[in-house]
Amino acid sequence: MKVGDVHYRSIWRDAATGEVRIIDQRWLPHDFPIATLESLDDFATAIRDMWVRGAPLIGATAAYGVARQMERDPSDAALAEAYEVLHATRPTAINLRWALDEMRNVLSRLPEADRAEAAFAKAAAICDDDVETNRMIGVHGLDIIREIAAKKKPGERVNLLTHCNAGWLATVDWGTATSPMYQAMEAGIDIHVWVDETRPRNQGAQLTSWEMAGAGIPHHLIVDNAGGHLMQRGEVDMVIVGTDRTTATGDVCNKIGTYLKALAARDNGVPFYVALPSSTIDWTVSDGLAEIPIEERDGREVTHVYGRDEDGTARFVQISPDATPGGNPAFDVTPARLVTGLITERGVATPSREGLLDLFPERRSTA
Amino acid sequence: MKVGDVHYRSIWRDAATGEVRIIDQRWLPHDFPIATLESLDDFATAIRDMWVRGAPLIGATAAYGVARQMERDPSDAALAEAYEVLHATRPTAINLRWALDEMRNVLSRLPEADRAEAAFAKAAAICDDDVETNRMIGVHGLDIIREIAAKKKPGERVNLLTHCNAGWLATVDWGTATSPMYQAMEAGIDIHVWVDETRPRNQGAQLTSWEMAGAGIPHHLIVDNAGGHLMQRGEVDMVIVGTDRTTATGDVCNKIGTYLKALAARDNGVPFYVALPSSTIDWTVSDGLAEIPIEERDGREVTHVYGRDEDGTARFVQISPDATPGGNPAFDVTPARLVTGLITERGVATPSREGLLDLFPERRSTA
Repeated sequence: MKVGDVHYRSIWRDAATGEVRIIDQRWLPHDFPIATLESLDDFATAIRDMWVRGAPLIGATAAYGVARQMERDPSDAALAEAYEVLHATRPTAINLRWALDEMRNVLSRLPEADRAEAAFAKAAAICDDDVETNRMIGVHGLDIIREIAAKKKPGERVNLLTHCNAGWLATVDWGTATSPMYQAMEAGIDIHVWVDETRPRNQGAQLTSWEMAGAGIPHHLIVDNAGGHLMQRGEVDMVIVGTDRTTATGDVCNKIGTYLKALAARDNGVPFYVALPSSTIDWTVSDGLAEIPIEERDGREVTHVYGRDEDGTARFVQISPDATPGGNPAFDVTPARLVTGLITERGVATPSREGLLDLFPERRSTA
Repeated sequence: MKVGDVHYRSIWRDAATGEVRIIDQRWLPHDFPIATLESLDDFATAIRDMWVRGAPLIGATAAYGVARQMERDPSDAALAEAYEVLHATRPTAINLRWALDEMRNVLSRLPEADRAEAAFAKAAAICDDDVETNRMIGVHGLDIIREIAAKKKPGERVNLLTHCNAGWLATVDWGTATSPMYQAMEAGIDIHVWVDETRPRNQGAQLTSWEMAGAGIPHHLIVDNAGGHLMQRGEVDMVIVGTDRTTATGDVCNKIGTYLKALAARDNGVPFYVALPSSTIDWTVSDGLAEIPIEERDGREVTHVYGRDEDGTARFVQISPDATPGGNPAFDVTPARLVTGLITERGVATPSREGLLDLFPERRSTA
C-alpha cells in the first residue's frame, strides 16, 4: 500500500543490493524507519521484539531469514539451526511454522549449492502468494460488505469494527481484515471503521489507524472497552478481525480481546467474521482453548505506553505505580460457535471442520 | 484509607480553616496533589474535569459545593444556581442528582440565616453515611468471598477481577467494589486482584492499582482485553465492579467496558457482582439501555495517555496519528440478565425490580 506517493510492501528485497528490508513497525505512527535484516539473529530479533508482527508477515520474514542463512551457509545443520531459532521466536502464530516448513521442504532436497537461490525464490514466492491471497480475501469479504450496504438507507454508512492490526502491515500487502475495506472503498461503498486501539501494544492506534488515515478511509480510534456499547447501540454492522492461528474446527486464536468482541457481537446479532489466509489454519489442532499455546509477554508492555510527547519526541511513559506488576497474555481464543464465517482466499467457510474441508477438500485425507 | 502513614478520605473539611479539600486524582499515581475548592466554579470544574470521579464522591463533592455556595449567598436563587451548575457537570452518575436533591430538600425549608451551617452539616453527614454504607457493602461482599474461599484447596488464592476504580478514591472511604477486598484481607483470606487498566482514563492503572499497592493487596494490572481470556482459563473466581447508575430493574450503567466483562463472566460461569450504595439506584428508570444518558467525552482522552517518562516527568503522549479522531463513549449498560447480584449496604439483591424492592421495601409505594 502507499505511504505518501510510494507503494510499499511490509518486507522486500532491495533490487540493487539484494538486502532484505522491513518497516520497523515499533515506532509507527511517529517514525517510519526502514531496517535491513542481515544475520539470523537480526531476523529472530525482528520477529520476537515485534519490529514485524502479524501472522502472515511473521511467516514471510522467517522465510527470508532462512534464505539469508542459506546464502551464508547452505548446510543441513545451518538449515536446522535457522528453523529452530526462528521457530522459537513466537509461539502462537502458526504461519511461522508453516513458512519454515515450506522452506525446509523445498531446500532439504536440493544440493547445497542450489539452496541459496532457491530459498530466495521461495521466500519471494511466499510473499507474492500472500499478496494474491489477501487480494482474494478482499474479493470475498467485499461480497459481504456489499450485502450489508444493499440493506442500508441512502446516506447510511456501513460501520465495520476491527481489533488489532490485520492490515497490510501484518501481511506483505493488502492485509487480511483490511483487504475488504480497501476494496469496498474502491467500489464506492460508504464505509466507516471503528478501530480498537488494542492494548497493550496499541496496534490499532499505531498501525491500523495509520493505515486507515493513509488510505483516506473514514475511521475513529476507540478504546477496546467501547465496542460492546457501540454494538448495543446499533453502531456496528460487521466485525472483521484477523487471526494468528485457526483450528481445523474453526476456533480462532487472535490478539487478546478478540473473544470479548465476539461475545458482544453474538449478544447483539452483529456478524463476526475472521479473515485469514489458509496458511493460518492449523489442521493438527481441534480444540483451540486446550491446545494453542498463548504467549505471555513482558508485563512492561502493560505498564508502559509508547507515544509522542508535546515536544514531538516519541517515548514511553509508565502509567501505573512502581509497585504494580503487569500481567500480559498476548492472545485469546474465540470459540467457533461465536464466529459467523471465515473469509479465506477461496471463499467464506462456515467455522467448523466440515465447513473448512468443503473449501479445502485436499485436506480431507490428512484431517 | 492510608496513604503512607496518614489516613485520608477523598474529600474533607480542613479542621482549622473550614476549607473543603480533595485529592486531585488526575495526577495519580505520579503526583498526589491536594486541592482546595472555593468557588462554585471550582466545584463544577473538579467534577467535570475529573479531579474527583466515582459516583459516590461526585455526590459528596456536589454536596460540599452547595454548602460553600450557601456560605456566600444563602438565597433561593443561589441554591437553584448551585443545583443547576453542579447537576450539569456530568450526565451519567445518578448520585450527583441524589446528593443535590438531599441538599435542596434540607435547605429549601430553612430560613436563609440557617442554611450555611445546615448545609455543611448535611454534606458532612452525606460523607459519613457514605463511609458507613461502603463498610457495610464490604461486610456483605465479604460473605461472598468467604464462600468462594471455602471451596478452594489449601494454597489456592481467590482471584477477583475489577474494572475502573470503585475504590476509596471513588467514594469518601472504603470504596464499593474494593470494600469487600479490604475486609477479605483483614479476615486473612488469600486474595489476588486482576485490575483492568480501564482505558481511556486508566482509572485502574492510575487509581485502583495505587490503592491495591498502598494496602498491600496482591494484584496485577491487566489490559481491558485480558479478562475474557483469564476467565476462560479459570483464573477469575468473581468479578466485582461499581456502578454510576443502576436502574430499578437492575440494569447496571458503569464505566465503558463493564458490559464486555459481564458477557465473558456469563460465558464462563463466573459470578458477576456489582457493589453499590442505594443512592446509586435510579428508581425512576426501568430500561438502562434506552433511558440512561451516556456521556460522550473528548476524543483526546483516547488519543492521549498520561504517564511518567523515563526522566520522572509526568506528561501526556499521543498514541495515534494526527489524522485519526478518537470516539469516546464513557459508560455502557450491562443488562440485569448478566448480573449475579447487587451488593448494597443492606445485603445482596437479585438484579430485578422485585429483588431490589425486597431490600428497599420503602420504595414499593413510589416504584
